[in-house]
Amino acid sequence: MAIPMRLRAFSSSASAPKWEGGVSMVQGASRGIGLEFVRQLLEKNEKGHVIATCRDPAKATVLLELKNRFAERLNVLPLDVTVESTIEESARSITESYGSLNLLINASGILSIPGVLQPETTLTKVQKSSMMLAYEVNAVGPILVIKNLVFKFSFFFPACVDPLERYMLLIFGDTCVTEMHMWPLLRVGGGLGTERDVAVVANVSARVGSIGDNRLGGWHSYRASKAALNQLTKTISVEFGRKKDPVACILLHPGTVDTDLSRPFQRNVPAEKLFTKEFSVQKLLNIINNTKQQDNGKFFAWDGQEIPW
Amino acid sequence: MAIPMRLRAFSSSASAPKWEGGVSMVQGASRGIGLEFVRQLLEKNEKGHVIATCRDPAKATVLLELKNRFAERLNVLPLDVTVESTIEESARSITESYGSLNLLINASGILSIPGVLQPETTLTKVQKSSMMLAYEVNAVGPILVIKNLVFKFSFFFPACVDPLERYMLLIFGDTCVTEMHMWPLLRVGGGLGTERDVAVVANVSARVGSIGDNRLGGWHSYRASKAALNQLTKTISVEFGRKKDPVACILLHPGTVDTDLSRPFQRNVPAEKLFTKEFSVQKLLNIINNTKQQDNGKFFAWDGQEIPW
Ligand SMILES: NC(=O)c1ccc[n+]([C@@H]2O[C@H](COP(=O)([O-])OP(=O)(O)OC[C@H]3O[C@@H](n4cnc5c(N)ncnc54)[C@H](OP(=O)(O)O)[C@@H]3O)[C@@H](O)[C@H]2O)c1
Ligand SMILES: NC(=O)c1ccc[n+]([C@@H]2O[C@H](COP(=O)([O-])OP(=O)(O)OC[C@H]3O[C@@H](n4cnc5c(N)ncnc54)[C@H](OP(=O)(O)O)[C@@H]3O)[C@@H](O)[C@H]2O)c1
Repeated sequence: MAIPMRLRAFSSSASAPKWEGGVSMVQGASRGIGLEFVRQLLEKNEKGHVIATCRDPAKATVLLELKNRFAERLNVLPLDVTVESTIEESARSITESYGSLNLLINASGILSIPGVLQPETTLTKVQKSSMMLAYEVNAVGPILVIKNLVFKFSFFFPACVDPLERYMLLIFGDTCVTEMHMWPLLRVGGGLGTERDVAVVANVSARVGSIGDNRLGGWHSYRASKAALNQLTKTISVEFGRKKDPVACILLHPGTVDTDLSRPFQRNVPAEKLFTKEFSVQKLLNIINNTKQQDNGKFFAWDGQEIPW
Repeated sequence: MAIPMRLRAFSSSASAPKWEGGVSMVQGASRGIGLEFVRQLLEKNEKGHVIATCRDPAKATVLLELKNRFAERLNVLPLDVTVESTIEESARSITESYGSLNLLINASGILSIPGVLQPETTLTKVQKSSMMLAYEVNAVGPILVIKNLVFKFSFFFPACVDPLERYMLLIFGDTCVTEMHMWPLLRVGGGLGTERDVAVVANVSARVGSIGDNRLGGWHSYRASKAALNQLTKTISVEFGRKKDPVACILLHPGTVDTDLSRPFQRNVPAEKLFTKEFSVQKLLNIINNTKQQDNGKFFAWDGQEIPW
């Protein structure tokens, strides 16, 4: 049976030029851990291409300095995880410009926003608005990025079916469409030095998202959003795993890292447990570069130890 | 130091009359498992008092039939977990009418709503609106109920402080206020036949909320919301545990139960694995009645087995 034209158009991206050094995307790259991922990816892999997204590129001054240094290999795009149109627009742009992706890191996240979101010390301080906001940014946001970036074509497919394609859709049902259009962007390789044998989607979570490890309580909004992110990542990993494609979706805990996010809470952290972002990201990139297919769906701390759910 | 008047007023509820047979509240009692909890609590404990809440009491015909049978011992109140004012109003009414609570069961929950919420078979079908709605109802809702019912006084305290109290607040800080006003409603006992040695808060979760047990994928919105509910319940249990009060907060998985919620998905369930609500609730009440303080923060299936996070 002939492949309808639009399907062929999609399939053709499979033969897009392989970008030397690979293509990595870092979502949430204006500051902190995300920004440091961009820097190390560019500095350590001198042929690697990086797409860095953030809410407001014009204000991301350090990222723009990197853009000056690595003009050819760094692409900065606007993306706010709470505004799905910006995710779709980035996905479209990346698909057109690169046609493939070896690594996607979701680094964005919120813990406190003065006057808006305050980590709760007791249930009495839990506010619905904080719960919903933390969930929207920390759990739903990264998942919508993966949906649009990695499942892009299957996502756009239903909207653009012509009568013949619709007929195919009816005959084969969802499964067929999904099979044919599964994560067309993701490509293996792109590691530093060695070629990884899987493409990696890494969501930056947090140890406090672990339910089993929750001994201190508090931080209800943040903990719940990260536990949900863990569950969503696991759910996606099952879908990746079922296709036996060389793709692994993992969760990362960076340790307690000296960034804007942790600053208000660093008082009780012993000095040796407060990492620089350089150290943490070096460790996390090491995990990413050594990811195997059987790591799909796992939750790793910076030191490679698995964290219980 | 003399206790300011308002604080004394709060403390006085500690000496409220003990309701013979205990007071239980079932939230989400219009249908399904919640309704069955109400029925069995009333039928099995002939002195027990039950508060049944639901979104629209006038439409809850079977619940109203129970109200006819058990007029003296059943109190039906309107409560929609997405409208916090209805939770506050119930909390106020229950505090005034009963002054104590031995058991709180959060049974409400959504999995699918035709045209609004469809359990996702693949990531491509994940919609932000579904994710947010499932979270609001399944995770945030029960937590706001516990906050208002159980932590009610500490919750209302900041709004009504007079200058002297505000001074105390400044001196003692949050900890003092929390210590003095912790879960004043909850009282031990109220079990069927025997007196439980803990008051129980039971949130009805689902095995598919378990991350460790997630082997099938799909149902992203529902799975994430229940994983978040599990994390939130664990977080609250830490706060209960810290005070060493005789209160336990547990999570329950009812099994696959023949209700409106499971009906669209029963096709592939073997007959012996599809429970009647009578059977499931009997098992769950057995767990609740045998809850010990050391069960605080645990997640039990209908058969008493613990479920991994
Ligand atoms: N630092 C730690 O100790 C620690 C520990 C455990 C886990 N983590 C996790 O590590 C990740 C990075 O945190 P960090 O320490 O680097 O925090 P950070 O310095 O505060 O950076 C947070 C980043 O998230 C971005 N962001 C916030 N809301 C966003 C939105 N709606 N759309 C897109 N981007 C958004 C911020 O962009 P703007 O500049 O536009 O605000 C910023 O780039 C987070 O997921 C965090 O939960 C951090
Ligand atoms: N049935 C199963 O196989 C199964 C398996 C695992 C877990 N569970 C869990 O068991 C619990 C009970 O489910 P069920 O099977 O009894 O479902 P059900 O028959 O569909 O009943 C759901 C109940 O939740 C209430 N509810 C929905 N939205 C609400 C809101 N915004 N505020 C207050 N109440 C609301 C409904 O009230 P209205 O009548 O007003 O809609 C109804 O009383 C749920 O938490 C569910 O996730 C069920």
